[in-house]
Amino acid sequence: MPHWTTLVAEKKQRQLQSIPQDWLVTPPPDSTLDVTSFPETCGLLNAREIEITNTSVDALLERLASAEWTAVEVTTAFSKRAIVAHQLVNCLTEIFVDRALARAAELDDYLKKTGKVVGPLHGLPISLKDQICIKGLETIMGYVSWIGQYADKNAVLVDVLIECGAVPFVRTNVPQTLMWPESFNSVFGRTTNPYNRSLTSGGSSGGEGALIALKGSPLGVGSDIGGSIRIPSAFCGLYGLRPSYWAYSVPSVFGPMTNSLGGVKAFMKAVVNAKPWLKDPLAVRKKWDEDEYNLADHGYGKDLCFAIMWNDGVVVPHPPIRRSLEITKAATPEGGPQSSTVQSDIWNAGSPEDFMITTSVTGEPIISTMELDDADPAVSGFRPQNGGITAYKLWQVQKLRQNIRKEYLDHWEATASETGTGRPVDAIICPAAPFVATPHGKNKYANYTTVWNSLDYPAAIFPVTTVDSTLDGQEPPHGFYDDFDKYVYEMYDPEKFKNAPVCLQLVGRTLEEEAVIKMTEIVDAALTATK
Amino acid sequence: MPHWTTLVAEKKQRQLQSIPQDWLVTPPPDSTLDVTSFPETCGLLNAREIEITNTSVDALLERLASAEWTAVEVTTAFSKRAIVAHQLVNCLTEIFVDRALARAAELDDYLKKTGKVVGPLHGLPISLKDQICIKGLETIMGYVSWIGQYADKNAVLVDVLIECGAVPFVRTNVPQTLMWPESFNSVFGRTTNPYNRSLTSGGSSGGEGALIALKGSPLGVGSDIGGSIRIPSAFCGLYGLRPSYWAYSVPSVFGPMTNSLGGVKAFMKAVVNAKPWLKDPLAVRKKWDEDEYNLADHGYGKDLCFAIMWNDGVVVPHPPIRRSLEITKAATPEGGPQSSTVQSDIWNAGSPEDFMITTSVTGEPIISTMELDDADPAVSGFRPQNGGITAYKLWQVQKLRQNIRKEYLDHWEATASETGTGRPVDAIICPAAPFVATPHGKNKYANYTTVWNSLDYPAAIFPVTTVDSTLDGQEPPHGFYDDFDKYVYEMYDPEKFKNAPVCLQLVGRTLEEEAVIKMTEIVDAALTATK
Repeated sequence: MPHWTTLVAEKKQRQLQSIPQDWLVTPPPDSTLDVTSFPETCGLLNAREIEITNTSVDALLERLASAEWTAVEVTTAFSKRAIVAHQLVNCLTEIFVDRALARAAELDDYLKKTGKVVGPLHGLPISLKDQICIKGLETIMGYVSWIGQYADKNAVLVDVLIECGAVPFVRTNVPQTLMWPESFNSVFGRTTNPYNRSLTSGGSSGGEGALIALKGSPLGVGSDIGGSIRIPSAFCGLYGLRPSYWAYSVPSVFGPMTNSLGGVKAFMKAVVNAKPWLKDPLAVRKKWDEDEYNLADHGYGKDLCFAIMWNDGVVVPHPPIRRSLEITKAATPEGGPQSSTVQSDIWNAGSPEDFMITTSVTGEPIISTMELDDADPAVSGFRPQNGGITAYKLWQVQKLRQNIRKEYLDHWEATASETGTGRPVDAIICPAAPFVATPHGKNKYANYTTVWNSLDYPAAIFPVTTVDSTLDGQEPPHGFYDDFDKYVYEMYDPEKFKNAPVCLQLVGRTLEEEAVIKMTEIVDAALTATK
Repeated sequence: MPHWTTLVAEKKQRQLQSIPQDWLVTPPPDSTLDVTSFPETCGLLNAREIEITNTSVDALLERLASAEWTAVEVTTAFSKRAIVAHQLVNCLTEIFVDRALARAAELDDYLKKTGKVVGPLHGLPISLKDQICIKGLETIMGYVSWIGQYADKNAVLVDVLIECGAVPFVRTNVPQTLMWPESFNSVFGRTTNPYNRSLTSGGSSGGEGALIALKGSPLGVGSDIGGSIRIPSAFCGLYGLRPSYWAYSVPSVFGPMTNSLGGVKAFMKAVVNAKPWLKDPLAVRKKWDEDEYNLADHGYGKDLCFAIMWNDGVVVPHPPIRRSLEITKAATPEGGPQSSTVQSDIWNAGSPEDFMITTSVTGEPIISTMELDDADPAVSGFRPQNGGITAYKLWQVQKLRQNIRKEYLDHWEATASETGTGRPVDAIICPAAPFVATPHGKNKYANYTTVWNSLDYPAAIFPVTTVDSTLDGQEPPHGFYDDFDKYVYEMYDPEKFKNAPVCLQLVGRTLEEEAVIKMTEIVDAALTATK
């Protein structure tokens, strides 16, 4: 058997060969941190391709359905931009543009002949995290030992997307093991953040985050066991949704990452209405509910009341995060319907033990030793527990987790007495992490996302602002919760995080995806109105 | 601490004191096997009380809502009949008629004052399996050691039912551990079958089965981890429904047992529309779907196609079961909409290993040593495995179970090519057990029910006929699958099972309760039409 470095070299060579040679560009030097404008200035994309790739998912779907744009030209445009993006931030793994263009041509033919679209995502290029199998392709998932293993069938979700008319065209980078919120492995190397390449794009769906931020894909599919959709969405300034579990026993769920909420809605509605439960026995049989989308369970959107969670009682967020919460709080009363906020202590009522216990159940992802500087203090708590536990012990932990879920449900219901609307708090708005995208190797705290996995609450990410060194100066030290809180505090420096997007998280109740999307739309519109 | 027999004697004394003394009757001698007519001839119930207790749930709810009958008189009538039933078949545990009558009086007052019902189950007496906690009452669940432990709060389902206007009034007997399909324990003794007291009423919700068969309750709540609703429903000639899991990790689900399908529907609709997910974090957020009830996913009921599973490839059913399948097959083409059946081998395609593996995952209930004759052959396979397994092993078994669920789903979908309707088989009709109610201690095979728990398919029980010694003579020996199949074959004798009800099971797809209820209504109407 060849040495592992030989296997990697061969794989990288094959990857290079999968790129059309005339799409190779000369990227800016590493010292250029912000590369977001490069794809439009590098000369590879013509004006129409730039227009296509700058179009939001809803508008793309309309123009594809009306044959104003063909699937082939849309796929070509995104493929070119994806290849440029890859040369900037190293975001791709499998590249199969030929296959995608062949599928796009079929779709164009079908539409021409029948006058009908194949499905609700007709002609939309979709990128996939390097975890979602496609027949005939390797799924390396960051493991050298998986090089050369070709899938003999599509993942169920790929079949569903193809039925919906989507065009898978690239797969994207992840961390080795998937269990780390940065995207770095021995096969494909490290993905960087296009807003500031000295920062991480997050993980585990970090290739998606970087690619979509550069508009190299209109919509990507990530998976989220503890924040793997939300962290890269937040670090790269995207919209993303972690749905409720589709499964009884598999804590990882697939969800969309994209540049507009329209894309999130289009993906969720298309996938749910494709009846995935006829293909996946663990998918919940629950159709897209337009009534829930219209906030039937939230007074049809009248006087929405959001609880703001300023910090989790374990790690205090950095200044830009705090500012984004203030912006959102200020924006929501004026936005669309009347809104208000309850600064409710219940969401951070000193239950870090709860969180720790709870997250340990889902297989909390912060178990790697992939940091660049292993000498960091206070990270030992994030290392994996060695040795297995018994099934009996696991049941005890699951029982404990159920009790915690019941406790939180009762808490949430009890807020009805505080809101003034007669309803409990409609959603929670909170940080997605205590920081924006961190320098590589420093993203070591995921409890702002994992807590909602543990409770199985759906959560959407939405962008608010970017780091501003004038507005986001370091604050004087607070009373630190512990050494790790101090470590995070000391990590901050506005120059270091220059230009990084700042996103927040809107959290709803289990299997309430429709309402979470609608409420995020309302908040997003309110933020836009105040800009 | 007193000797356990003293504790039991004291408890039985308290139980006796909870019965109004003028409701005590002189039951027939033990040699009288069929006691179903006794409640109406014993003289305790007047004509109106007999009329009330013979009324189906839908009609009861209408008359209660229109104040034609008061909740107090309905509760009184069922309480009296329940007490008579208890004296015949030993079906009750906790008796709290005073509390129920006080609640009924409140409901009557409310209706009188407001002209409105409290909820969709306004004034309906409901009996509960001795597992479902009620504040201030013991929940003994067959354990002597639980005598004297009083609940400090209601189970969530009890709160939901009370909100819906129901009136809990008695709790009913179960086996020690709940993990045995007959109802016998050291505290309350053995519940017998009112159609033939030498037979079991089944378990674990066997007190419910016997009580409802004697019309001592219009509707009971059982729980089902492997057949505990369906086995007593089938053995006592009732309608019952095992819903899909409401929970991700708790395989036991609550469901209704009653004398009409109207009762099954009223219960499910009321409970689901009460939004149990606001009280129980494991309840699936899915409203009652009238469209699914109208069989939107089954061609709106046009040309329904049922697969008949004649046997499970492990144990061949007794003659009355086979006859009931033939009656149902013959009835369905003429019943209501056009129906047909596919004798599809896929449902028993020699996968007993699958079943065994699968049922072992859910905690298959046949693990007790409660049989009367421990010397029976071939029961060792049904004893519990000693010693724990690791969480890793459990995950492997769960993974295997998921693969099996996927395999069955694909099988079911593939039947579209066989039905002639363009749709897959709409439902499966199969035995609920290979036998009708067995003699006490002989109910040792539950795979006809557990298989659907493993696959998480909802399943309804419906009555077809009763054992007829002329029509149901013993058949010549078949080629036995194994010794246990032979043992079951040799157990049969039409005289032994005299007068026992024969029921079947209709099985649908996960979270498709509405359609399962509707299809069972269609089959039931077809059977009625041929009688």
